[in-house]
Amino acid sequence: MTERLVVIGGDAAGMSAASQARRLRSARELEIIVFERGRFTSFSACGIPYWVGGDVLDRDALIARTPEEHRSRGIDLRLRTEVIELDLEGRRVRARALDSGDESWTDYDKLVLATGARPIRPPLPGIDAAGVHGVQTLDDGQALIDTLETTTGKRAVVVGAGYIGVEMAEALIQRGYDVTMLHRGPEPMATMDPDMGALVREAMCGMGITVVSKAEVTEVLTDEHGRARAVVADGAEYPADVVVLGIGVRPDTELARAAGLPLGAHGGLLTDLAMRVRGHENIWAGGDCVEVLDLVSGRERHIALGTHANKHGQIIGAGVGGGYATFPGVVGTAVSKVCDLEVARTGLREKDAQAAGLQYVTVTIESTSRAGYYPDTAAMTVKMLAERHTGRLLGVQIVGREGAGKRVDIAAVALTARMTVEQMTALDLGYAPPFSPVWDPVLVAARKAVAAVRARG
Amino acid sequence: MTERLVVIGGDAAGMSAASQARRLRSARELEIIVFERGRFTSFSACGIPYWVGGDVLDRDALIARTPEEHRSRGIDLRLRTEVIELDLEGRRVRARALDSGDESWTDYDKLVLATGARPIRPPLPGIDAAGVHGVQTLDDGQALIDTLETTTGKRAVVVGAGYIGVEMAEALIQRGYDVTMLHRGPEPMATMDPDMGALVREAMCGMGITVVSKAEVTEVLTDEHGRARAVVADGAEYPADVVVLGIGVRPDTELARAAGLPLGAHGGLLTDLAMRVRGHENIWAGGDCVEVLDLVSGRERHIALGTHANKHGQIIGAGVGGGYATFPGVVGTAVSKVCDLEVARTGLREKDAQAAGLQYVTVTIESTSRAGYYPDTAAMTVKMLAERHTGRLLGVQIVGREGAGKRVDIAAVALTARMTVEQMTALDLGYAPPFSPVWDPVLVAARKAVAAVRARG
Repeated sequence: MTERLVVIGGDAAGMSAASQARRLRSARELEIIVFERGRFTSFSACGIPYWVGGDVLDRDALIARTPEEHRSRGIDLRLRTEVIELDLEGRRVRARALDSGDESWTDYDKLVLATGARPIRPPLPGIDAAGVHGVQTLDDGQALIDTLETTTGKRAVVVGAGYIGVEMAEALIQRGYDVTMLHRGPEPMATMDPDMGALVREAMCGMGITVVSKAEVTEVLTDEHGRARAVVADGAEYPADVVVLGIGVRPDTELARAAGLPLGAHGGLLTDLAMRVRGHENIWAGGDCVEVLDLVSGRERHIALGTHANKHGQIIGAGVGGGYATFPGVVGTAVSKVCDLEVARTGLREKDAQAAGLQYVTVTIESTSRAGYYPDTAAMTVKMLAERHTGRLLGVQIVGREGAGKRVDIAAVALTARMTVEQMTALDLGYAPPFSPVWDPVLVAARKAVAAVRARG
Repeated sequence: MTERLVVIGGDAAGMSAASQARRLRSARELEIIVFERGRFTSFSACGIPYWVGGDVLDRDALIARTPEEHRSRGIDLRLRTEVIELDLEGRRVRARALDSGDESWTDYDKLVLATGARPIRPPLPGIDAAGVHGVQTLDDGQALIDTLETTTGKRAVVVGAGYIGVEMAEALIQRGYDVTMLHRGPEPMATMDPDMGALVREAMCGMGITVVSKAEVTEVLTDEHGRARAVVADGAEYPADVVVLGIGVRPDTELARAAGLPLGAHGGLLTDLAMRVRGHENIWAGGDCVEVLDLVSGRERHIALGTHANKHGQIIGAGVGGGYATFPGVVGTAVSKVCDLEVARTGLREKDAQAAGLQYVTVTIESTSRAGYYPDTAAMTVKMLAERHTGRLLGVQIVGREGAGKRVDIAAVALTARMTVEQMTALDLGYAPPFSPVWDPVLVAARKAVAAVRARG
């Protein structure tokens, strides 16, 4: 008998799940229907800043697999169709075709929720004015590019200083804009500790970006045509020919909430290790709409990141298709760049460690990406947190230039393996003068952390 | 009472040991005498190819710490002085001042052997002719540079295709030479499997380097002034205005052998985990003259690499100074480059796995250093070995361009943690389009390795 799988959401997690399930089960065994409210599938949202900035010339380059490609593989893909109700009892979903307004119910045997996340858009006066842009979807990206290409002024205000904010600042600089970044925190990149965020701010200022910290945006002022002309924060007006919002996202789980599915403290769906929604044998969830286990703190977190969404999709597809795979959790790795500045983190910040009840030591070291005598050696700063007494690695943050960012992977693997900083000092890392000083910066930090753990007792 | 530490060898391991011991013990507690047969201390032998190639302009840039700096820290450093006999019973060493020929005995309470390695120089006709150069010491490097600057011809022959060989090939290309590389193996870079070495050969040929594999060098021909003019291999003559030997090194342990200290199968000293020579409480050894435990195969290996020598020195210095530290072993990580080609390895090659009695699967994948749509994305090839049944990671080899080499560190940490390839598929590695595809190449290889382990059974 043919079973039916319904997938809600046709981006990374949903389409990976559908594709993987299709590989494992033939159309005779499993019918697959995907509802997607947008016009695209499987696109790289993370790539949008580089498209806007001009590094990526073509929107379609960001699309990993088109709707036609998915359909040719036997997936019944319904674009511009939004699921508006979930009937768990009746094992069916109600969907609305956005163009016609037609609604209908579709039964399922197995269900995958991959509804993603929605950008946070505070309800401020003028926030929906022309010239104010989010950068979540390809349509958002196109709308922003259209604005950039038709606006004559060259003043941009970016609201928010997380990954999207700093990447958009780079994109706008590449487009020749004067960029002002307004954000609430004490320093940009709140995913880092403030002392490391300060290095990011200093570097951004050096690139000509105006960074205004502890700024509370209250209004977007508009001109007589209803177009944004300035952003107001703490009473000051910041003139803007274009405004970009990069305030963050939250899980898009209204549908799940209405159906009574279990949500966590961050509003994301809660799943088991096989990515099945807790308490529901035939429902899976993955991608930006779920919470994930942080293996270092032992707590659930919400992290919207394509690399996790793809992993979730693979695991869900295996489960739906009768295979077996699990997602053990994350250690919280992220890497980003602003022009030539690389910023990376993994594990816990100081405040995460405090919230988790962990006592720790921190060390910060300066080193270089290559041997000191080798050309183009770049400085980098590495901060490391280790648990008091045990010396277990808790987190690493890196700010530097070329060669800095991906070094965080060393710590990401060490965190996964629950290594101590003492164990890390013995790591056999790749060394040659063009690649590293004789002591890799991560090892230098680990050595200093060992001393700090011993000194603190 | 003041103890006396004698250190034989004033490079990375010896001087790190002496410096660390000095930090922990005052001159009143510990007298430190270092015998070094050369004129320099603490120099980066790994940096010599970049000095010869012109990337590093100044010889002194390769010296991490000068003799004067060491002396100012209270180390009695005796340059151009060779230890020629070890009297374990009498706890004394006999040293010869190379300039005067004077000999004398020096007592010790504690002894550190850091005698390094010597380049292999096969006893062939003409091998000692003018124009034939090794590149082990700063004096070697200077002699080669002198030759390059006085020779009018531009034909170079490099004998050997290991790290030194390929790095010297790059250096000579940068100097404008036509480079021919002669080596014995089936493919260059015998530290890689031949299928990966073939990629290196192809790339080197693309750079204009003539690579002659399976070449048995039998003679260096000289001109009427006794200068090298050609290298003969398998009956063919390869004209050469300069010849560089990069055939490899062996531990310099004649002194230790004569004194009856324990040597391993590769001729290196055998130590315990605290780097004490086995069976000798008051003698330590480290750097290129020792064998190290390969944590993957469980066997001893000889690896001449500055990063290990520095670690050994730190550990020995701690032990001599009354502290505590150990060197658990290596996983065999190495990274190198030839022009813009990056070559890296860690863990076991196929023949290492076979020799260790391990059954394994191998997979090879092609991926890219950044998201496929991001500018300057470069192709890379990753080969992975995993143990049959258990799926434990056994080794990784990478050949690619910018961003390829240091990715080997991910596998180096995973090997240290004895991860399975299945565990690796869940690694939370740094992802953003400028840094990685959404699945990092190492993860792509791990996923394929999981499938191979399952298929093989």
